[in-house]
Amino acid sequence: VSHLGTRDHGSQAAVVVATLRDIVGADAVFTELADVEPFVVDWRGRYRGEALCVVAPRSTEDVARVVRACAAVGTPVVPQGGNTGLCGGSVPLVRSDDPARVGAVRAPVVLNLRRMNRILEVDTVGNTLVAEAGCVLADVQRAADERDRLYPVSLGAEGSCQIGGTISTNAGGTGVLRYGGTRENVLGLEVVLADGSIWNGLRGLRKDNTGYDLRALFVGAEGTLGVVTAATLRLHPKPRAFATAWCGVLEVGDALRLLEAVQSRAGSRLSAFELMNSAQARIVEKELPGRSCPLPSATPYHVLVEFSDTDESSPVGAQLEDALSRALEAGWITDAAVAMGMGQRAAIWEFRHSVSEANRKYGMGVTLDTGVPIGRIADFVAAASEATRQAFPDVEIVIVAHMGDGNVHFIPMFPAAVWEPMPDKPAVARRARQLVHDIAAQMHGTFSAEHGIGQTLADELVRLRSAEEIRLMRLVKDALDPGGLMNPGKVLPT
Amino acid sequence: VSHLGTRDHGSQAAVVVATLRDIVGADAVFTELADVEPFVVDWRGRYRGEALCVVAPRSTEDVARVVRACAAVGTPVVPQGGNTGLCGGSVPLVRSDDPARVGAVRAPVVLNLRRMNRILEVDTVGNTLVAEAGCVLADVQRAADERDRLYPVSLGAEGSCQIGGTISTNAGGTGVLRYGGTRENVLGLEVVLADGSIWNGLRGLRKDNTGYDLRALFVGAEGTLGVVTAATLRLHPKPRAFATAWCGVLEVGDALRLLEAVQSRAGSRLSAFELMNSAQARIVEKELPGRSCPLPSATPYHVLVEFSDTDESSPVGAQLEDALSRALEAGWITDAAVAMGMGQRAAIWEFRHSVSEANRKYGMGVTLDTGVPIGRIADFVAAASEATRQAFPDVEIVIVAHMGDGNVHFIPMFPAAVWEPMPDKPAVARRARQLVHDIAAQMHGTFSAEHGIGQTLADELVRLRSAEEIRLMRLVKDALDPGGLMNPGKVLPT
Repeated sequence: VSHLGTRDHGSQAAVVVATLRDIVGADAVFTELADVEPFVVDWRGRYRGEALCVVAPRSTEDVARVVRACAAVGTPVVPQGGNTGLCGGSVPLVRSDDPARVGAVRAPVVLNLRRMNRILEVDTVGNTLVAEAGCVLADVQRAADERDRLYPVSLGAEGSCQIGGTISTNAGGTGVLRYGGTRENVLGLEVVLADGSIWNGLRGLRKDNTGYDLRALFVGAEGTLGVVTAATLRLHPKPRAFATAWCGVLEVGDALRLLEAVQSRAGSRLSAFELMNSAQARIVEKELPGRSCPLPSATPYHVLVEFSDTDESSPVGAQLEDALSRALEAGWITDAAVAMGMGQRAAIWEFRHSVSEANRKYGMGVTLDTGVPIGRIADFVAAASEATRQAFPDVEIVIVAHMGDGNVHFIPMFPAAVWEPMPDKPAVARRARQLVHDIAAQMHGTFSAEHGIGQTLADELVRLRSAEEIRLMRLVKDALDPGGLMNPGKVLPT
Repeated sequence: VSHLGTRDHGSQAAVVVATLRDIVGADAVFTELADVEPFVVDWRGRYRGEALCVVAPRSTEDVARVVRACAAVGTPVVPQGGNTGLCGGSVPLVRSDDPARVGAVRAPVVLNLRRMNRILEVDTVGNTLVAEAGCVLADVQRAADERDRLYPVSLGAEGSCQIGGTISTNAGGTGVLRYGGTRENVLGLEVVLADGSIWNGLRGLRKDNTGYDLRALFVGAEGTLGVVTAATLRLHPKPRAFATAWCGVLEVGDALRLLEAVQSRAGSRLSAFELMNSAQARIVEKELPGRSCPLPSATPYHVLVEFSDTDESSPVGAQLEDALSRALEAGWITDAAVAMGMGQRAAIWEFRHSVSEANRKYGMGVTLDTGVPIGRIADFVAAASEATRQAFPDVEIVIVAHMGDGNVHFIPMFPAAVWEPMPDKPAVARRARQLVHDIAAQMHGTFSAEHGIGQTLADELVRLRSAEEIRLMRLVKDALDPGGLMNPGKVLPT
C-alpha cells in the first residue's frame, strides 16, 4: 500500500479512476455529479457522503480487480447493494464536523453490485438457490416460488434491496419468527476479501463442520470485512395454506398473552406475529390513502397474526379462528378481522409493509431497532414511552414490532412542524436514541436487532457493548482488513 | 509470556501444577496416572495423549485464572467436556512419530468442565435456557421438558456429552432436519479467551445485529479460540403428537423419492428422516441382543421417518400413514412398521441411537462423516462403496445417514479378524478416508458434516479446502490465540 497523502489529490483521483476504467470498462465507472448522486445519498436522504467514483462491475473477477487496485493505492471501498439500509451503511461516511475526524477517511470508491444480478442455480432436491449479490430480493423470492419453493426473508424494501445487502446487514423482516433471519438462510458465500483475493465458499450443504464458520463472519459485517459477491441460499417447502388475521388489542401485555398461547399450540405454523400501535396505523392511513387499516386505526394496538402450512388441506383457518375465539373470550383481543382469501391477505400485508414509506412522508422519525427478551416487551414499551415523552413533550410515540422476535421499532416521531425549528437536530436524535437504548440495555436487550450498525450506530456500539467485545471485533477486523479500507467507519468507528 | 524452554521441564511442570492448585484447590487438580488416564484417552481408545495434569474448575472466574496462568508460562490448554467426540478433539494431541513434529507441542493442561454443571435460568416466555458448559446434554433436555419446552439437539451420546462440547463441535444429530444444529440453537455464549479474559455474550435474543457474529466463531471452533464456559440456548415449543415409522427400502434412490414427497407436504412436521443399510442393522442386532430391528435386518436399506406436531390433536398419524401408503403403491418402500404408542417409538429410536456402541464392539470402523447435496446421496453411496471395495476387498460397508441433511456416515468396517493382522493400520485408515473424502469433494460435499475436525481430520482440512480458506482460518486463529496455546493441533495442524 503506497500512501499518497503527499501527492496531489486531484491527479491521484484521476489515476484511480483511469485504472478502474481499464478494469471494468468506461461505461461502468461514474464520476459525473448527477450520475454519482443516487449512490452517495441513502434513500431517506439522511446521509450524504463523497465518493471518488461509482463502479458497477459485472463479475466477481472484476470486483476482485477493483478491490485490488484500490488496496494498492490505499483507496477505501464502500460495497453497495440496493441502498435501502436504515443506518447509512451503504453510502460513504459523512464527513464529520469534529476536527479530530475530518479527513480521517479519504474519498472512497462506491462499489455497486447491481449488474451482478443473475440467479445461477436452483436445486429443488437440496432446496438451495445460488444468486449473485446484486439480485433483487423479490426476484429471488420469485425464482424460488416458480419452482414451488420459498425463500423466506421478507421485508418492506424487498422490491429494491439486493441479496448482497440483505446478507451484509443480516436482514430480518417478517419471516424471522418462522424461518430465522438471513444468517439462518445463507448456506454458502463467495466473498472478495480486502486484498482482492476471492474466497469461494459457495457450498450448499445443510451441515458442514469443517473448521471455523467463516460464512457467519461475513453475514452482518456490512462490507467491512470483504465484499459478498454471491451466495447459496436455503429454500423451504412452500406454504400452501394461510390464515391471516388483524386483531385489536388494548395493551401490549395482552398481545404477549396471545403470543404465548398461539406459539405453544401452533408451533411452527405460527409464521408471523406483528404489532403496531394506533399512531403507526394512523400515519399509514394518512400518508398512503389507498391503504386502509383492517380495524379502526384508533384501536390502541394492532396485531397481525398468521398461521401457514405446507399441506394445503391443513385446517389453519379453523385453528386460527379457534385461537382468536379463546383470545376474545379471555379479553386479550377486542376484535379481529380474518382475511377471506389471498386478496385480503395481501391487503393486510401491504398495510404492514407500508410503515417505512408512510413514516418517511409523515415526519422525522428516529427509527429505533431495539430488541428485548420477549417477556419484557410490555415493560420496555412503557418505560421507553415515558422517558421519551418526558424528554420531548411534543414527540409522538410510534411503535411497530416484530413481536414474536422481541424486536420493537420504537420510533420517537417528530412531526415536521415540531422538527423544523429545532436547533441542534443531530443532538436531539442522539439523545432520543440513547434514552431508549439505555432502557433496552437495562433489560438485557439490544439497540440493533435487525437494521445493523452502519454509520448511525457505530458510536453506540462502543458505548453499549463491553470493552472485551469491542476488542474481539477489532481483532477480527484487523485480521481480515489490516489496511482498514473496507467500508471504513461502519460497524466500528474509525 | 515467558518462554521456559531453557529451564528444567520437570521443575517447570511442578511450578505450573502448584500454581493451578493455588487457583482451584488441590482437590481439583489431578496428576496421578490413574486419575489422569480417563481424560487423556478418548472413549473409543483411539487417541492417547499426555497431559501435565487435569484441572476441573468450578467457576468461570477459575477457568479464566487457569487459562491466564497457563498463558503466562506458555503451557497449552485442552478444554474438555464429556470426552465423547469422534475425532480426538477433546484429548491432548497424540505425539507424532514424524520427527518434524515431535515436541512441537509441550504437554498441556486438560481443562475439564464437568463441575460447571448448573442450569442457571429457564425463560419460558422468551424460550431460552442458560446453562454452564459442563451440563450433560440429557440434563438440559430434561430441564426444558419439565417446563414444557424442547431443547432439540439429540444424539447418541446425549447421556454423557456436555453442552460445552456440543457447542465446540457444533454437534448435529437427529434433530437437525427440523430444528437446525447446535449453531442454530445457541443464542449467546460466555467464553474465556486465550489470554484469560472473559467475554460475556450470554444474550438470549432471537435477533441481535450489533456487529460481527462472535458467537458463531466459537461454535464449532473445538476450543481452539477460547473455552466456552456457559451458553444461552434456544428452546422450542414441545411437540405433543408423534408418528414414527420404520420402512424397508430396496435402494437409496427410493429413499430419496420418499424424502422429497414427505418433505414438500409435511414441511416442518417432518422431524426425522434417517437411513441405515442392512449391514448396520445386523451389527446392532448382533452386538446388542436386546435391541431388535423393527423390520427384518436383511432388508437392503431402512428408513426411520418421523412426523411431529406441537398440537396434540394434529393428525400426524393419519398423515404419515397416508404418505406411506402412497410410497408403498409407488414401490419406493417394501414394508413399513408404524410405532403404536410412545413405547414402540422409544424402541425404534433406541435402535437408531445404538449404532455407535454396536459398531465399536463389532470391529474397527473408519467412521466417516461425509455430506453431499441431497440429490447426490445415491450416487455418492454407489461410488464410495465401489471404490472402497476395490481398495479393501474384505471390508464391510456400513451406512448410517441423517439423510434429510445430506449427511452420510459411510463406514468402511474391518471385522477384527481382518483388522488385527493388517500391517500399517494408520495408513489403511488414512487411505480409506481419503478415498471416500475425494468422492464427496467431487460432488461438492464435505468430509465433516457434524463430527468436526479434531486431530483426526486436521490434515484433511488442509488437503481438501482451498488455500484461501485455510489462510482465512489461520488469520482468525492467530488473531484470537496469538500464542497458539488453545487446544493446539486441533482443527488446524500445528
